[in-house]
Amino acid sequence: MARHTADLILNNGLIVTPGGVIEGGVAVAEGKIVAVGSDAFLPDGERRIDLAGKHVLPGVIDPEVHLGSHRPLADDFRTETRAAAAAGVTTWGLQLTSLFITGGADKVKGPADIPNFTGAMPSFYEAARSSVIDFFLTPIVSTEEHVEEIPRLAREHRITSFKIHLQMQGPWKPAWPHYAFDDGTIYSAFEAVAKLGPPALALLHCENWEIARVLENRLKAAGRTDKGAWDDRSPWITEAGHARTYLYYARVLGCPVYVVHATTKETLAEIDKAKAEGAVVYSEIGAHYLVLHKDAWKINVPLRDRRTHELLWSALASGAIDCIGSDHVAHTRTREAMETGNVWTTVSGFPSRVEGMFPMMLSEGVNKGRISIARLAQVASENPARIFGLYPKKGAIVPGADADLVVVDLKRKVKISREVLHTVTPWTIYDGWDVTGWPVMTMVRGHIVMEWPEGEPRARISDGSPGEYQQRKLAR
Amino acid sequence: MARHTADLILNNGLIVTPGGVIEGGVAVAEGKIVAVGSDAFLPDGERRIDLAGKHVLPGVIDPEVHLGSHRPLADDFRTETRAAAAAGVTTWGLQLTSLFITGGADKVKGPADIPNFTGAMPSFYEAARSSVIDFFLTPIVSTEEHVEEIPRLAREHRITSFKIHLQMQGPWKPAWPHYAFDDGTIYSAFEAVAKLGPPALALLHCENWEIARVLENRLKAAGRTDKGAWDDRSPWITEAGHARTYLYYARVLGCPVYVVHATTKETLAEIDKAKAEGAVVYSEIGAHYLVLHKDAWKINVPLRDRRTHELLWSALASGAIDCIGSDHVAHTRTREAMETGNVWTTVSGFPSRVEGMFPMMLSEGVNKGRISIARLAQVASENPARIFGLYPKKGAIVPGADADLVVVDLKRKVKISREVLHTVTPWTIYDGWDVTGWPVMTMVRGHIVMEWPEGEPRARISDGSPGEYQQRKLAR
Amino acid sequence: MARHTADLILNNGLIVTPGGVIEGGVAVAEGKIVAVGSDAFLPDGERRIDLAGKHVLPGVIDPEVHLGSHRPLADDFRTETRAAAAAGVTTWGLQLTSLFITGGADKVKGPADIPNFTGAMPSFYEAARSSVIDFFLTPIVSTEEHVEEIPRLAREHRITSFKIHLQMQGPWKPAWPHYAFDDGTIYSAFEAVAKLGPPALALLHCENWEIARVLENRLKAAGRTDKGAWDDRSPWITEAGHARTYLYYARVLGCPVYVVHATTKETLAEIDKAKAEGAVVYSEIGAHYLVLHKDAWKINVPLRDRRTHELLWSALASGAIDCIGSDHVAHTRTREAMETGNVWTTVSGFPSRVEGMFPMMLSEGVNKGRISIARLAQVASENPARIFGLYPKKGAIVPGADADLVVVDLKRKVKISREVLHTVTPWTIYDGWDVTGWPVMTMVRGHIVMEWPEGEPRARISDGSPGEYQQRKLAR
Amino acid sequence: MARHTADLILNNGLIVTPGGVIEGGVAVAEGKIVAVGSDAFLPDGERRIDLAGKHVLPGVIDPEVHLGSHRPLADDFRTETRAAAAAGVTTWGLQLTSLFITGGADKVKGPADIPNFTGAMPSFYEAARSSVIDFFLTPIVSTEEHVEEIPRLAREHRITSFKIHLQMQGPWKPAWPHYAFDDGTIYSAFEAVAKLGPPALALLHCENWEIARVLENRLKAAGRTDKGAWDDRSPWITEAGHARTYLYYARVLGCPVYVVHATTKETLAEIDKAKAEGAVVYSEIGAHYLVLHKDAWKINVPLRDRRTHELLWSALASGAIDCIGSDHVAHTRTREAMETGNVWTTVSGFPSRVEGMFPMMLSEGVNKGRISIARLAQVASENPARIFGLYPKKGAIVPGADADLVVVDLKRKVKISREVLHTVTPWTIYDGWDVTGWPVMTMVRGHIVMEWPEGEPRARISDGSPGEYQQRKLAR
Repeated sequence: MARHTADLILNNGLIVTPGGVIEGGVAVAEGKIVAVGSDAFLPDGERRIDLAGKHVLPGVIDPEVHLGSHRPLADDFRTETRAAAAAGVTTWGLQLTSLFITGGADKVKGPADIPNFTGAMPSFYEAARSSVIDFFLTPIVSTEEHVEEIPRLAREHRITSFKIHLQMQGPWKPAWPHYAFDDGTIYSAFEAVAKLGPPALALLHCENWEIARVLENRLKAAGRTDKGAWDDRSPWITEAGHARTYLYYARVLGCPVYVVHATTKETLAEIDKAKAEGAVVYSEIGAHYLVLHKDAWKINVPLRDRRTHELLWSALASGAIDCIGSDHVAHTRTREAMETGNVWTTVSGFPSRVEGMFPMMLSEGVNKGRISIARLAQVASENPARIFGLYPKKGAIVPGADADLVVVDLKRKVKISREVLHTVTPWTIYDGWDVTGWPVMTMVRGHIVMEWPEGEPRARISDGSPGEYQQRKLAR
Repeated sequence: MARHTADLILNNGLIVTPGGVIEGGVAVAEGKIVAVGSDAFLPDGERRIDLAGKHVLPGVIDPEVHLGSHRPLADDFRTETRAAAAAGVTTWGLQLTSLFITGGADKVKGPADIPNFTGAMPSFYEAARSSVIDFFLTPIVSTEEHVEEIPRLAREHRITSFKIHLQMQGPWKPAWPHYAFDDGTIYSAFEAVAKLGPPALALLHCENWEIARVLENRLKAAGRTDKGAWDDRSPWITEAGHARTYLYYARVLGCPVYVVHATTKETLAEIDKAKAEGAVVYSEIGAHYLVLHKDAWKINVPLRDRRTHELLWSALASGAIDCIGSDHVAHTRTREAMETGNVWTTVSGFPSRVEGMFPMMLSEGVNKGRISIARLAQVASENPARIFGLYPKKGAIVPGADADLVVVDLKRKVKISREVLHTVTPWTIYDGWDVTGWPVMTMVRGHIVMEWPEGEPRARISDGSPGEYQQRKLAR
Repeated sequence: MARHTADLILNNGLIVTPGGVIEGGVAVAEGKIVAVGSDAFLPDGERRIDLAGKHVLPGVIDPEVHLGSHRPLADDFRTETRAAAAAGVTTWGLQLTSLFITGGADKVKGPADIPNFTGAMPSFYEAARSSVIDFFLTPIVSTEEHVEEIPRLAREHRITSFKIHLQMQGPWKPAWPHYAFDDGTIYSAFEAVAKLGPPALALLHCENWEIARVLENRLKAAGRTDKGAWDDRSPWITEAGHARTYLYYARVLGCPVYVVHATTKETLAEIDKAKAEGAVVYSEIGAHYLVLHKDAWKINVPLRDRRTHELLWSALASGAIDCIGSDHVAHTRTREAMETGNVWTTVSGFPSRVEGMFPMMLSEGVNKGRISIARLAQVASENPARIFGLYPKKGAIVPGADADLVVVDLKRKVKISREVLHTVTPWTIYDGWDVTGWPVMTMVRGHIVMEWPEGEPRARISDGSPGEYQQRKLAR
Repeated sequence: MARHTADLILNNGLIVTPGGVIEGGVAVAEGKIVAVGSDAFLPDGERRIDLAGKHVLPGVIDPEVHLGSHRPLADDFRTETRAAAAAGVTTWGLQLTSLFITGGADKVKGPADIPNFTGAMPSFYEAARSSVIDFFLTPIVSTEEHVEEIPRLAREHRITSFKIHLQMQGPWKPAWPHYAFDDGTIYSAFEAVAKLGPPALALLHCENWEIARVLENRLKAAGRTDKGAWDDRSPWITEAGHARTYLYYARVLGCPVYVVHATTKETLAEIDKAKAEGAVVYSEIGAHYLVLHKDAWKINVPLRDRRTHELLWSALASGAIDCIGSDHVAHTRTREAMETGNVWTTVSGFPSRVEGMFPMMLSEGVNKGRISIARLAQVASENPARIFGLYPKKGAIVPGADADLVVVDLKRKVKISREVLHTVTPWTIYDGWDVTGWPVMTMVRGHIVMEWPEGEPRARISDGSPGEYQQRKLAR
């Protein structure tokens, strides 16, 4: 057998593999990992990069991003996948309503105007052509027609994850023209997903806005206008209540579920109970829920308090929470244009979630001892890959897998400002934060899409668009 | 950096790693795994073995063997470690009473004569000099003096696992001179183990012989003499009852426990409940409990029925059971000398458990679809390594780990007979069984200790004695 | 102390008291029970009735009746309270929407037109003037205004029970003009009831009609038109799902709840779980759910199958279900006018639930050994009295309590037909049934309101209207 | 029907019946209750006692007393049943080893010398001839022969309760010559009791003395000699551990169990879990466990701390604990002869448990709001009657039941001293306590056996011996 030369050797590093953190390196050829080993036993390579003791992790797989929500989808793909690459993300799970793909939400006059996904898919593929990272799609199922599309989306586009915005249930409303569904729709959706078999699963945003409505009225009546009132508007009961209800229906119907942003101990308790009853449940948390106090901004579900942060860190470290996800959204508004001084009129959501995610995990998590780097590789890459049907093509540093890698310098110090970031949004919630630990190289199937050499003001991002749509495995 | 030549390359195989089963090979140098990769990117090697598509797994870590129980310990070490190597075992966990090390059980006249372990350790090391595989020690704590030794055994000999033969509790008896302990002793032992911190743990043989005594009397009175009566003598309540009781004390005292041979669904249910209450519990099953009907022979705990076999296969596959263990014992008696035609006088225990274990897992497990080969690597190697404090030095095929490997030919057909086996015992319970799937090479830290070339009548075993005592990690 | 003469002595009977069934009799004076004892030691009485071994139970307290739903409330009060008295009921819990009191549902054009209860109460009292039995009111809370009335209704009218028709949640609909509420309304209602303190409680109709909608469409598409399809339209998941959700919110908010018609084992399982978590939950079953097969008629929640009947009998006997309730409704339509041969167009609900209830409990329950007569007294009288705040004034045969009594002849044979009944509705679902065991005398606070002498064609009902509104205890 | 004159009328009182506390009185004739009613409607009586507003409760049924443990059984029967009558007890459940009946424990040289119960019963009946109150027997099953006797004791003596001193298990010991049993014996006993059917049940003393042995050694080594060390010697784990184990075996074998003195929250938790799994479990607490701090004296199981007292009061009030029992023991030693200043040599057990029980329940319980008088009647009389198979002959004030009554003056003030008590033991643990609330009359089947007129120095006790042995119901 002829010995080959690899395209690239990363050596003298700490390689975070499923079997442990090993000293040595990784060989890459034709976009794949071809060897992992001690430096002295790695193959020759066209290019060799000395990691100088830095860590290499499997590229971050971020399952929750909402492109197209404020700008045309193609615009977001172009700018925001570069922001993601800057932060170590190599695969993005886009969670989109059909209107986020097609646009035209302002022209919807009733539920009949909500487009289906089958028709929207060509636009989706077209918009994604500029993506610098890999990506897959999680449709937000919002109508009965969307439920009916599930088998076809699975078969034709290898889509296996479907999201439900539980907070949006009820009759169609002009204020949220994307949605027209009720518990019956959800029941049918769970059935349809269950029928696909694992790894197909339903994602749930748990937050009972009917209860939040009552609490908001009380808070307004009490004169509250501070940002912290947002947490009081959607307290744990709104999140855990939905979890209790819909994990039950999902379990009965045999549908695996994934709770995006499980942010309260009561939600985690309901997840535990559902599992004990036989439900298959996964859960996710965003880094912002681990570091930002509820006074920082409004978002759904809300940011919580410091004590909850620590509880969530523990849950992530122990295995009670499975994944991290950015919930990234982009727009071009300034902070001043969004923040009114009154929580009820302040614009919801804040930047820059994807670029903050992995650095926060490194700085506040790994470097402060809240989570090991091996566990971080699981929650940021291996678990999302397994849960969303990308494993073992993605999610682990193992020969045969895609060469999706992120090199991390746990000692790199960065003061966050608009200038070091790549998102289109002109401000950041983390402005002025000093962090230690940052991704310094991102590779997508062997393409180096980001490098941040020591001393340069910010990362260099590739001009290429190697990103590819990821079809997923189907059970049957 | 100078490129090195490995000592050995195994290539063209299916490598069972923690990150998945990969096509390619493994490079070994100086007793360690130094690279895992696609064949074309493996380093040069002094020797190269073409696996021709066979699987390579991490060497089997068998946590339960009772050497010295019928012959001098040194004799057992010499012959039986070779039998173990023949069956893919690379590390053995010896579970010994102090008298199995020192001998002289016949001279014990009372509990004061039971030797301690501290004094017995030089004899243990001496007896082990002929071992062909690696090994560690799990003392069977049988007296209060043994409990008092726990911290010292941990500190001086890096012993972190301690077993309790719950069925033997009660006052000292000449028939079983090794033991003199009660619930107070167990309480103290759990405390002492808990104080060591993980991975220290207590192993429990669960079987209430006080209840078995009553049932045995009834069975005798009813005229039962068949081997199946042995299961009726120690039915599930005797095993699950002990589990319920001692997992509780262990949980309260913060002591992780490991249930050897969890053989009933009621035992597994108690383990589940204890876990839900916060206990740290692991469990093990022997391959013989998965394939041998209760009519086959007597043993403690008893063999069960076919329905239980399937339930236990499922538990092993799903994660409810963590490990496999052989419970191997050797002696020189013929079957005729042991079997009387009456279960009550028939000699308990049967050969050849260690040589049957891994082949049964391959033939009845992997090849019949009851367990994946990836899961087999977990229960046979990774989990024991993690639980007993040997990971990541052992337990996974990953660069940096000991080169403890077993090459498996899933298509190799073997008719089991005395002639293909290596144990000293002159008969086997599996006599005449046709199995498909057998280990064909075993490597201990780079030493090839067993090879069974296609066409030869049985495996060749190394004359060397590379086996080393394994000190384990201590939390503090 | 002067010895008094009682108004009435019932003697030579079997008196079902909380302390057991005793041989002897009961003395009544001024509407109260004044003595219970062996015949020879009872006081003198103005009148003496020889029970000839018949049983005396505390009068039935039926917590669930919907008067005014098809006829003016006053009309229903006049005829239907007499039907109730004929069947042993001495106190009725009316569960009414405000429109059932005020009438005019056809004129409601939107949620703002739904009347409140405070304004409706004078009409309620007026309509009730012809009642022959005692009664209390459970408003069906259907709007946010109704929630706001809760404290005042409690204070001014001593109302402590409030019902929620969970199946009706959602925006206001012309088809069901009584309702306009959501989870926020329910949340506020639970809070308001919790604030009143026990015995205040919320009653829940559990049945998820959003899911039923989907299933109905499927059943129609599959061509099903049989009555049994009604059970398939609202299977256990619709009932148990609501129980799981709303028992959770109620427990969190400290609101005791009462599940009307808990008809599936899964519902009972959710009730058990909620109790284990600290919820205060009671449950009720109608006699029709114990004896009528799902093919008999459509109703909400649906009738179930025979196996479920036995399960519910067991639950009632064992204590898992607390109360029985008739869910009685009256109208003047013939069977032919209601039954179309197609379940989807057949009119829902059937007569004659109140007159069938107690006889079915006697004939199918007591006389067939499914429930003891002592337990029947608990579920038909003592438990409703305790749960709804009427105890010990009502609910038990004990000196000092209201003389609300029902004399039962366990051997009386009756063939049910329109002619033996007293309801206004011109047909009965039980037509032609032969039953053994029937109430033969009903007494309300000492007034004999029903007597059915042996041999007469049907019971004689009093012309008087002694029925009184029952104010209830308030915790604070 | 001729009107009769009762033997005795108690009127103008508050009668605590299962249906509530009623104003009025009770009529007694021929040893039975013949009427309960308002005063004006009670029958004529030979004698009439004006209760002047005092409460009448059903006589206390104390299920746990150990006569014969320090004096001949007949001597204890004579003096101690009078002490019991003085404190409101009308039925005593004697829990006796066979040696407490036969005497001669000092002559037992081995397990073969332990007498059986069948042979001891004539002595038991003879010794009981002087009893002033009714009584039944609960044999303490201590050998396999005792287990074998169970069916015969049930059939011939209508014995349905059998106790096991779990702390005494193990081989025969001269220090406790009464016992020789193990888990096998217990297994057989549970089976035999289960076979009898309800109300047959096994009583369990839960306290793992093997663990206590270890803890005692540590406490002695640490120099502890204070009485509080006794609680540290047998902490909750010794009690809850036994509960966890033996409630499991009992549940599996279908044997109802009754935990005497359940004194820790962990024990109550295990009882809850066992119930949730289907076990039938009752529990008892002694009044001394509710009022005496662990520093007061040594006893088994130990007295606990103040916080536990309140927890146990709550459990008793809420229904988590079912019964109270005195655990009374008598002897003639002075306090000085028992108390050495060192807990390890101080004599275990203290007087005067039966005379302290009901007064403590009234003074510390009812009068301090910790338990209602209605609940007191349940735990002191109705529940023991139901559980031990005496209901409805005993346990409730209801016509037809035995006229076993205790009149209670909730305002009577008593300073406890040796002089107000009737036990033979010359001192009392409650010496000097001021209590409010005391029983002032006790009636056994119509016989007034105790009266304490206001102003007299202590109660007058009857010279008669109306006490009768109570045969119990058998299921089959």
